[in-house]
Amino acid sequence: MFVIGERINGMFRSVARAIRERDVNAIADLARRQVAAGAGALDLNTGPTGEDPTEVMTWLVETVQEAVDVPLSIDSPRPPVIAAGLRACRRPAIINSTTGAREKLDALLPLAAEFGAGLIALTIDERGIPRNAAARAEIALTIVARTTEAGLPGDRIYLDPIVLPVNAAQDQCREALLAIPSFRALCEPAPHIIIGLSNVSQGTANRSLINRTYLAMAMALGLDAAILDPLDQDLMDALRTAGILLNQEIYAESYLQRRPA
Amino acid sequence: MFVIGERINGMFRSVARAIRERDVNAIADLARRQVAAGAGALDLNTGPTGEDPTEVMTWLVETVQEAVDVPLSIDSPRPPVIAAGLRACRRPAIINSTTGAREKLDALLPLAAEFGAGLIALTIDERGIPRNAAARAEIALTIVARTTEAGLPGDRIYLDPIVLPVNAAQDQCREALLAIPSFRALCEPAPHIIIGLSNVSQGTANRSLINRTYLAMAMALGLDAAILDPLDQDLMDALRTAGILLNQEIYAESYLQRRPA
Repeated sequence: MFVIGERINGMFRSVARAIRERDVNAIADLARRQVAAGAGALDLNTGPTGEDPTEVMTWLVETVQEAVDVPLSIDSPRPPVIAAGLRACRRPAIINSTTGAREKLDALLPLAAEFGAGLIALTIDERGIPRNAAARAEIALTIVARTTEAGLPGDRIYLDPIVLPVNAAQDQCREALLAIPSFRALCEPAPHIIIGLSNVSQGTANRSLINRTYLAMAMALGLDAAILDPLDQDLMDALRTAGILLNQEIYAESYLQRRPA
Repeated sequence: MFVIGERINGMFRSVARAIRERDVNAIADLARRQVAAGAGALDLNTGPTGEDPTEVMTWLVETVQEAVDVPLSIDSPRPPVIAAGLRACRRPAIINSTTGAREKLDALLPLAAEFGAGLIALTIDERGIPRNAAARAEIALTIVARTTEAGLPGDRIYLDPIVLPVNAAQDQCREALLAIPSFRALCEPAPHIIIGLSNVSQGTANRSLINRTYLAMAMALGLDAAILDPLDQDLMDALRTAGILLNQEIYAESYLQRRPA
């Protein structure tokens, strides 16, 4: 499993404060702790800052890559902010995110090509959020057709079946799970399949339980990447256990003590 | 999810003692606590008793059905012990278990027919434990062909893909999971798919974590029944959460407090 740490996001009050005060130590600490806990990449999102988000994103990239040496996921709804982040990255990054909407793909595919970046693609389009697994697969096919045309190899694509909060759209939790196996065969090499895990538990009373249960289920169906909170120890324990039960990692009596390289 | 409580088994020292002393209260208490915790049926296994297991099984059935009103799963490697248990049951029971071996099916299919019982069928046969998902599906097909021939409707069959301990046969955990979807389409109405969950964690240091992670993964693939320990609260929480995420139960903020009917 490829884990992208979600914690450097201006939506969190402590991160918003660190951004406002350009607190290098706070951001570096959050970066180091997530990598130590098992993150293989870090998501960077400025949140709704009052400042120029382009400048904030550049500062976040520079600050984080001074602290840790993992790929960065440049997370913004605005292509110019993503472009600024990619420009500041020393190593290939991941764009978070495009959708199947033509305008989004037109803006982000050239950036992915120019910077050799990976591309997270949500299976939504101009019509909004699909109602079921089949509609998700249809949009995934459109996305893969466009990325292939643009010369992006399948293993630089991260298809996201769109996870909605269980307390608001319960049936969609199942539909997103059912979409996962259908994504795998869309191209060769196969695309990665990713979810933004924490969405599933937004507004619920037992967030960690819901997150870790959903993660194990999605992994059973073929999920191989997730944006999540690696500082949630119970979640990471479930992730490692699921990886072992899928024979993706070697079982050892002490596997919960071990930290991935 | 259909939960069969595993705790009334002479393999547990306290149960062996209760059997030896014919301690009605201890057995009745274990029956009531499992049903209160969410078991929809109870497995009864005499364990390696020094006495006549036929007599012990009859006593267990009589004792348990005085205490609770759920179906019983009569668990023995010996057909005469199963027959004695079925004879004592007031309501239709479940036979635990046959395999795909001809001799086992020849002995147990007539009992299932005579007593209107459900039938748990392990996908092993004379050749032993299958090496992969496809070999499990092949044995499942043989079993379903025989049960159909014997007039047992598909929804009285519980196909078990055979779960082995992760510390001894790690790759088989994945193979058992992968077999689940292939079982579903074998007959109409579809067979149930069941696992003996605790096997997966035999001899490991984190049994509950491994059990509940595997259960959620198996449910994502279509498992609809399990023999497990309903007194493991973390396990039952994961089970309810997985049921909600699969849209099989209605989400409510308080779902972890709720007990199934």
